[in-house]
Amino acid sequence: MTRILTVAGAQLGPIQKSEGRDVAVGRMVRLMERAHQRGAQVVVYPELALTTFFPRWYEEDISNADNWYETALPSNETAPLFEAARKYNIAFHLGYAEKTPDGRRFNTAAFVDPSGEIVLKYRKIHLPGHKEYEPRRQVQHLEKRYFEVGDLGFPVVRAPVAGVDVNVGMLICNDRRWPEAWRELGLQQVELVMLGYNTPSINQDRKGFEAHHLRVLHSHLSIQAGCYQNACFGVGVAKAGVEDDHELFGHSIIANPQGEMIAQATTWDDELIVADCNLDQCALGRSTIFNFAAHRRPEHYGRITGQVGSVEPPRWQPPVNAAE
Amino acid sequence: MTRILTVAGAQLGPIQKSEGRDVAVGRMVRLMERAHQRGAQVVVYPELALTTFFPRWYEEDISNADNWYETALPSNETAPLFEAARKYNIAFHLGYAEKTPDGRRFNTAAFVDPSGEIVLKYRKIHLPGHKEYEPRRQVQHLEKRYFEVGDLGFPVVRAPVAGVDVNVGMLICNDRRWPEAWRELGLQQVELVMLGYNTPSINQDRKGFEAHHLRVLHSHLSIQAGCYQNACFGVGVAKAGVEDDHELFGHSIIANPQGEMIAQATTWDDELIVADCNLDQCALGRSTIFNFAAHRRPEHYGRITGQVGSVEPPRWQPPVNAAE
Repeated sequence: MTRILTVAGAQLGPIQKSEGRDVAVGRMVRLMERAHQRGAQVVVYPELALTTFFPRWYEEDISNADNWYETALPSNETAPLFEAARKYNIAFHLGYAEKTPDGRRFNTAAFVDPSGEIVLKYRKIHLPGHKEYEPRRQVQHLEKRYFEVGDLGFPVVRAPVAGVDVNVGMLICNDRRWPEAWRELGLQQVELVMLGYNTPSINQDRKGFEAHHLRVLHSHLSIQAGCYQNACFGVGVAKAGVEDDHELFGHSIIANPQGEMIAQATTWDDELIVADCNLDQCALGRSTIFNFAAHRRPEHYGRITGQVGSVEPPRWQPPVNAAE
Repeated sequence: MTRILTVAGAQLGPIQKSEGRDVAVGRMVRLMERAHQRGAQVVVYPELALTTFFPRWYEEDISNADNWYETALPSNETAPLFEAARKYNIAFHLGYAEKTPDGRRFNTAAFVDPSGEIVLKYRKIHLPGHKEYEPRRQVQHLEKRYFEVGDLGFPVVRAPVAGVDVNVGMLICNDRRWPEAWRELGLQQVELVMLGYNTPSINQDRKGFEAHHLRVLHSHLSIQAGCYQNACFGVGVAKAGVEDDHELFGHSIIANPQGEMIAQATTWDDELIVADCNLDQCALGRSTIFNFAAHRRPEHYGRITGQVGSVEPPRWQPPVNAAE
């Protein structure tokens, strides 16, 4: 039996700071209805899908930011999304800010089955940006302030989705740029990587010039290479458009294990992309070029886990007799 | 002072099994002359640049393959290349089969300064293919027979090239598909990655269909992502064309730290591509998104060095009360 899963990426347009979760959830329900019409069995929503990308706003006292976090899933406000999933028999991936009962804060994604059960949870590990207010930046990027580093590793689980067993894993936003993150999933035979992002259209660090279109190239390169090098499908879904004058790019894609784009969003607003993912296509790469057991050489990868930052290489010393 | 290095990739067309090193070296010298005319300070030649891609030919007794290996560099046959480098004051990267005095065999690359000194040597770590004759294959790919896994790690050295200090490293062919290899170099602040390849136009394993053009996409994706994710320049240089009825693709490229292609070969024959590489462009990525010290999380990368092959993920178990 061919294992074909019909997967939708539900890109969201901007959510303004003043807008409540009801606005976002209403739009997400409409996208799920559209996904149902398109025959999708899984819908992937963006990172922090319920609110504006709040890490751009500085709060000296983090408890003043509590309104951005979810303490339960579903909640009264997110219940309509869970109801729609049950009605249409669609599994979904949701990114949200999580505050735990003991007060810890994470940038989290959950993969939820149509009955509302949380099948898998992931907490973002590669937090970009900074922790303290930085006056030199026009826009703050305070993920290191608002979230702890994820404490769940990079989990993969084999789960039934619409009658198909599929190895699912998740990344969040900046994680997609890190081949280590993809490889952790690939080493667990992931077949479908779901990931949401909120990515500014310009490099806010202003240490150098980076043309607008390159930011999109980087996102696509990272997802396509991650899929190719780990023989999996990837669904990268943006929150896009202008949130309170701050621009996020769209260009959500679905990529296959050959690294090809098989669907792409072209607006910066709510938009659904859909593709049939033949999970059996993961087998070719996994059994040939990327047969890890046959070809990987961890004895030569010592720096990857043995050091955090980079080190300067030694300077070449010409042989003494070369001076003759 | 801006550190601009003018780098050439010297793609080679096919070398037939019957052709001697004199033919290949003659063509390489002409490409170096052309590189001089184009103002290049470094020339990168392909993997196994001196002979046909001999791992496609099976020899039961490996000593019958001795004629494909170099036991000294320079030799009488390669001396004209070293002379041209000295004459034009050009450093070069050369891929070759190496047989050591104690009889070990490696797929090797050397970076040679204009005076003929070997600045850095690398021995290929990710050997593709297989060790024994496989009747199901139309074409053999016996790199695991003809070479040991490289024993030098992934070295990087800071070397003066045309008056510019540059952190140079090397990969060989299949290495470019492995993000672990790029990261080992990136963790040593590599600025210029030189790599040659001999890559068949079709997946010879025949376990599944892989369209011709995807093979090129995979090469480019891997090099562009490797450069972006490690904030370095990459020069990927093919031996291309039809060798004794066996087709290798070309499409050599130079990529910059943004992951952009800044030069591309379009023939499958001897062809020079040249680009100015502003090494200062490596600083942006390295100090922002890919500031490894600030953002990497090796405590979550345990599988990368802790296991070789992939493992099956656990199967999801719905909560017992979900069956109600």
